[in-house]
Amino acid sequence: MLTFAQFGAGRIGQIHAANLASTGATRLRYVVDVNAEAAAKLAAKHGAQVTDVKTALADPAVDAVIIASSTDTHADLAIASAKAGKAIFCEKPIDLSLKRVDQCLAAVKKARVPMFVGFNRRFDPSFAALHARIAAGQIGAVEQVIISRRDPGLPPIAYLKTSGGQFRDMTIHDFDMARWLLGEEPTEVFAYGSCLVDPAVAKVGDTDSVMVLMKTASGKLAHINNSRRASYGYDQRLEVHGAKGRLLAGNRVATTVELADGAAVTTEKPLYFFLERYADAYRAELAAFVDCVENKKPLPVTAHDGRMAIVLAEAAVKSLKTGRPVKIKG
Amino acid sequence: MLTFAQFGAGRIGQIHAANLASTGATRLRYVVDVNAEAAAKLAAKHGAQVTDVKTALADPAVDAVIIASSTDTHADLAIASAKAGKAIFCEKPIDLSLKRVDQCLAAVKKARVPMFVGFNRRFDPSFAALHARIAAGQIGAVEQVIISRRDPGLPPIAYLKTSGGQFRDMTIHDFDMARWLLGEEPTEVFAYGSCLVDPAVAKVGDTDSVMVLMKTASGKLAHINNSRRASYGYDQRLEVHGAKGRLLAGNRVATTVELADGAAVTTEKPLYFFLERYADAYRAELAAFVDCVENKKPLPVTAHDGRMAIVLAEAAVKSLKTGRPVKIKG
Amino acid sequence: MLTFAQFGAGRIGQIHAANLASTGATRLRYVVDVNAEAAAKLAAKHGAQVTDVKTALADPAVDAVIIASSTDTHADLAIASAKAGKAIFCEKPIDLSLKRVDQCLAAVKKARVPMFVGFNRRFDPSFAALHARIAAGQIGAVEQVIISRRDPGLPPIAYLKTSGGQFRDMTIHDFDMARWLLGEEPTEVFAYGSCLVDPAVAKVGDTDSVMVLMKTASGKLAHINNSRRASYGYDQRLEVHGAKGRLLAGNRVATTVELADGAAVTTEKPLYFFLERYADAYRAELAAFVDCVENKKPLPVTAHDGRMAIVLAEAAVKSLKTGRPVKIKG
Amino acid sequence: MLTFAQFGAGRIGQIHAANLASTGATRLRYVVDVNAEAAAKLAAKHGAQVTDVKTALADPAVDAVIIASSTDTHADLAIASAKAGKAIFCEKPIDLSLKRVDQCLAAVKKARVPMFVGFNRRFDPSFAALHARIAAGQIGAVEQVIISRRDPGLPPIAYLKTSGGQFRDMTIHDFDMARWLLGEEPTEVFAYGSCLVDPAVAKVGDTDSVMVLMKTASGKLAHINNSRRASYGYDQRLEVHGAKGRLLAGNRVATTVELADGAAVTTEKPLYFFLERYADAYRAELAAFVDCVENKKPLPVTAHDGRMAIVLAEAAVKSLKTGRPVKIKG
Repeated sequence: MLTFAQFGAGRIGQIHAANLASTGATRLRYVVDVNAEAAAKLAAKHGAQVTDVKTALADPAVDAVIIASSTDTHADLAIASAKAGKAIFCEKPIDLSLKRVDQCLAAVKKARVPMFVGFNRRFDPSFAALHARIAAGQIGAVEQVIISRRDPGLPPIAYLKTSGGQFRDMTIHDFDMARWLLGEEPTEVFAYGSCLVDPAVAKVGDTDSVMVLMKTASGKLAHINNSRRASYGYDQRLEVHGAKGRLLAGNRVATTVELADGAAVTTEKPLYFFLERYADAYRAELAAFVDCVENKKPLPVTAHDGRMAIVLAEAAVKSLKTGRPVKIKG
Repeated sequence: MLTFAQFGAGRIGQIHAANLASTGATRLRYVVDVNAEAAAKLAAKHGAQVTDVKTALADPAVDAVIIASSTDTHADLAIASAKAGKAIFCEKPIDLSLKRVDQCLAAVKKARVPMFVGFNRRFDPSFAALHARIAAGQIGAVEQVIISRRDPGLPPIAYLKTSGGQFRDMTIHDFDMARWLLGEEPTEVFAYGSCLVDPAVAKVGDTDSVMVLMKTASGKLAHINNSRRASYGYDQRLEVHGAKGRLLAGNRVATTVELADGAAVTTEKPLYFFLERYADAYRAELAAFVDCVENKKPLPVTAHDGRMAIVLAEAAVKSLKTGRPVKIKG
Repeated sequence: MLTFAQFGAGRIGQIHAANLASTGATRLRYVVDVNAEAAAKLAAKHGAQVTDVKTALADPAVDAVIIASSTDTHADLAIASAKAGKAIFCEKPIDLSLKRVDQCLAAVKKARVPMFVGFNRRFDPSFAALHARIAAGQIGAVEQVIISRRDPGLPPIAYLKTSGGQFRDMTIHDFDMARWLLGEEPTEVFAYGSCLVDPAVAKVGDTDSVMVLMKTASGKLAHINNSRRASYGYDQRLEVHGAKGRLLAGNRVATTVELADGAAVTTEKPLYFFLERYADAYRAELAAFVDCVENKKPLPVTAHDGRMAIVLAEAAVKSLKTGRPVKIKG
Repeated sequence: MLTFAQFGAGRIGQIHAANLASTGATRLRYVVDVNAEAAAKLAAKHGAQVTDVKTALADPAVDAVIIASSTDTHADLAIASAKAGKAIFCEKPIDLSLKRVDQCLAAVKKARVPMFVGFNRRFDPSFAALHARIAAGQIGAVEQVIISRRDPGLPPIAYLKTSGGQFRDMTIHDFDMARWLLGEEPTEVFAYGSCLVDPAVAKVGDTDSVMVLMKTASGKLAHINNSRRASYGYDQRLEVHGAKGRLLAGNRVATTVELADGAAVTTEKPLYFFLERYADAYRAELAAFVDCVENKKPLPVTAHDGRMAIVLAEAAVKSLKTGRPVKIKG
């Protein structure tokens, strides 16, 4: 039975702690958070102790850590955890700076600890099933990938200021998805970005509507479209074209009710936001991490994947700035 | 090239005449209608002559007739046409009285002419494809049939008075569908009928909402539900369960447009009514008739089918009156 | 915080105990089961004690009981629990005999305890949403109800022998659904039943394929079709027609993946069986029971509902035997 | 009643001639084609005469022409027709060279004749309904457009050699769609193109798989993905995101049949190719042209639209060649 320390007791931290408990095969020993009240509450709920980073990492009983604190602390905590020899589950992104990400990866490599990056979309039942069907050869060689993702609404402008921008904060999931679905690294990225939802977004130097193209060495093509607003909820769709067919994964709805009346035939809007839509995915990713660490299996999502998503996001930022496609160095 | 005489120049007659023309392999020589103006207009449109029944049937150049006049004239015209040796395409129902239907069938049998009854639903592309899949064994042995059919709105009460009642006027199509899909004759019918749309319907002794159950000798089961009203348009659906699977045929829509907004995801209502929904079916049934007569193939829908639909409708009427299931005599 | 005793530690009992725990606002004090090992295992999992019926009911700390033991014990346990003044959550059916059901209801009435019957379909998110939309007037007055339900495969013949027959064992859920959706009591039932799946079913005097019609005093109509086999999984669909529109609730699928290839466009089969399909419903019904008992609210499903479903099932059995429609006495 | 001359008696010419006849309000006087046999056959079918270009254009009775001959003759015929004062219906593209297109537009402008370019997709019932809903404000201001279009299979390599390349031959329809749906001119185009279907395509200097991004002055974004191959048929889908919602228009199918069996739930593949999918669109575009010319209404698709599609296609070709985005000059 693995023993965990968890850094971060906020919204995502609460989800991870609950999912950890539901695996039935782990123990949460420590909760660490700058917010003492949040830490105490979460620790109490799961029979854990509140402590500080140093104590948690110094305890040899701790096998693994969950890093679910604010983004700017991820890299430091991952490096310290690696040095302490703990298996690491780290929320995305590892860091907003590629340089810092690389320092983190070096520490992890040196310590030879497993590091999992929380690209939970890979564990969404529909997306995972789609990927498994590609792997099973149902559509032959992948040729084109199209990812459509929209959030229901704009986050607070204050949040946007520190988010690293739409590509690093939102599209990062899709960069990971694209790599995963293409089965080959993109070698070039081109991006357009606009501010169509709220002019305040432009004032803080960000975009709210983006489109990206990528290509790989063998000529596979990928497209991503994102918006910070979707009046109908949370749009999360994948489309993959191969030599022998097409796979789609659509939105999920709360009920299957359909109404036909004098006006139209109506069905439900998609599930509202990531907590609802990806509840299963959060559960599955943590279960996968626990299984891999416990049984010494290779991780399905690694620090390298976390790094590559940041590499693509930086390329998109640069493309947007220069108006040119940007080559990716492996 | 077959030469036709057509009885009836009303709404359905116009459709048949136009479809006849579009086959490109027939000639419409005569149009007969008590409404001289309608007859003249239709004849002019298709280069035919207006005449009377006697003249039309006496002309040896006439190979076949289309009977699209009012229901009470179908049997007389079919008998006369049979005696004159013409191939017969007759709109449903042959007659509202089974006795009269039987006289008609006797005349047709004696004259050895082909007689097709216009159960156009069998030629709807979706329904025909569903039937072909049953025949191809895709769902194994048929076990249960469910037919859901609703008209968009109540016909005029004046029409209802002479229609023969909902079972003979509306459900008759579904009795034919049920026989066709079951692949076995129903041996018993049970029916409920209510007046839920308009109390005026009850005043003329009719129903507007019915449900029927039927069973066959081998235990196959069928259900029909009908309503004279569907606020969302024209509901026309089939469902067949077999030992190895289920087949559905749903409604058709004019466009594939889907709108997602703050309220819901909406698609179009079904095509409005039979002229729109069954335009293809009307075309296909006439083409099938022409093909069979011209090439001396057996008809896909015969006078016997027309008779059996009336037999089932009469049984449903009797069931409604007596409150008991009614046995069908082959 | 309510304290529970639970009778039955089998498959359904395990689900209820887990859902009870997940409400976070109850305590399971006792587990009772003739299978000592099952009782011990379940008790250990939830921190409860194994005991006998008498002890459990004698403990004044016990507020409520869950009856999830074999069907033939339901009535006895409910009567004893009522006498002991406990709130009762009872799995369906209360009993296979109406007489015994009535004795049970008398005891409950006398003791003035709340008794909930586990018609979990009412708590399925899609079915509950459909019902809420009817209540909200979205389709106007209900006119016709169509319920299509099929199990993936035949239960063991040994089970069928003691099940009470298809109407009491399987259709009972649909009798409850029909009453709930019609919003009015059926006054007459007519039923057909066949043995199409396996002749062994007929040998034990049961059916595997049934169709039912019901009508109410005001003329509303309902149809149920059931089969013990559906090669594609678990078919669970509702359709309600009202004066202003139609509501459907369809099957649920595990993923939204769609494959288009040279053969067809394919999506997933429905969720396999009741444990998967109704997982949410089991959770929601128990949460509703806890909420009602704790907050002294009226129960959404009562012993009366449990009785009426048996009344309709008995009528269907009689209809099948006599070949006649059977009147329902309120 | 308008009198027409038609240039071209091939596959598309036959469609236009038949649709012209079906309007019931026009007369086809002349058919011109280098293939004398094809011309004679088509002329005979529609009661027209075979003649040469000069004679046809010299006849003052001719009001309008249909140019459905090979692409390299479009511009010459349009210029000659304009000089002769005829209204022009011209198949797309006007010409593969922008210079030649501009000469054509100058001639048309000088002659003040109406010139319609056959972007039939605009008249597809679903696409037209989607556009009408944008115009009606159902999704607010348009923000992003996504066009997915795939042909069922690769044309002969011989055809590709003279087609002008995938952007001019295939994507041209989507460039027009994008302009139409954006409601604003693209100011920049970026394109990727690969050869994934058949290496023979690369040998003739063409692509078979492309992705395009475009932006407008106000920041609206558009994406196009095309492939010369789709094993499942003919993929023709639009997606438009606005401030208040999303509109989709999907593929069309021949029937609504759905099969559920032990393997999956399957529906039909999309209609096979453009003749089937766009039959309604071909009919509607010609009816629109006839209506506009007869009633002196402004054309819904003009020579300017034909020109702009070529401008965007040339920009895409240049982007592919240079690896850079290409600015569009109004």
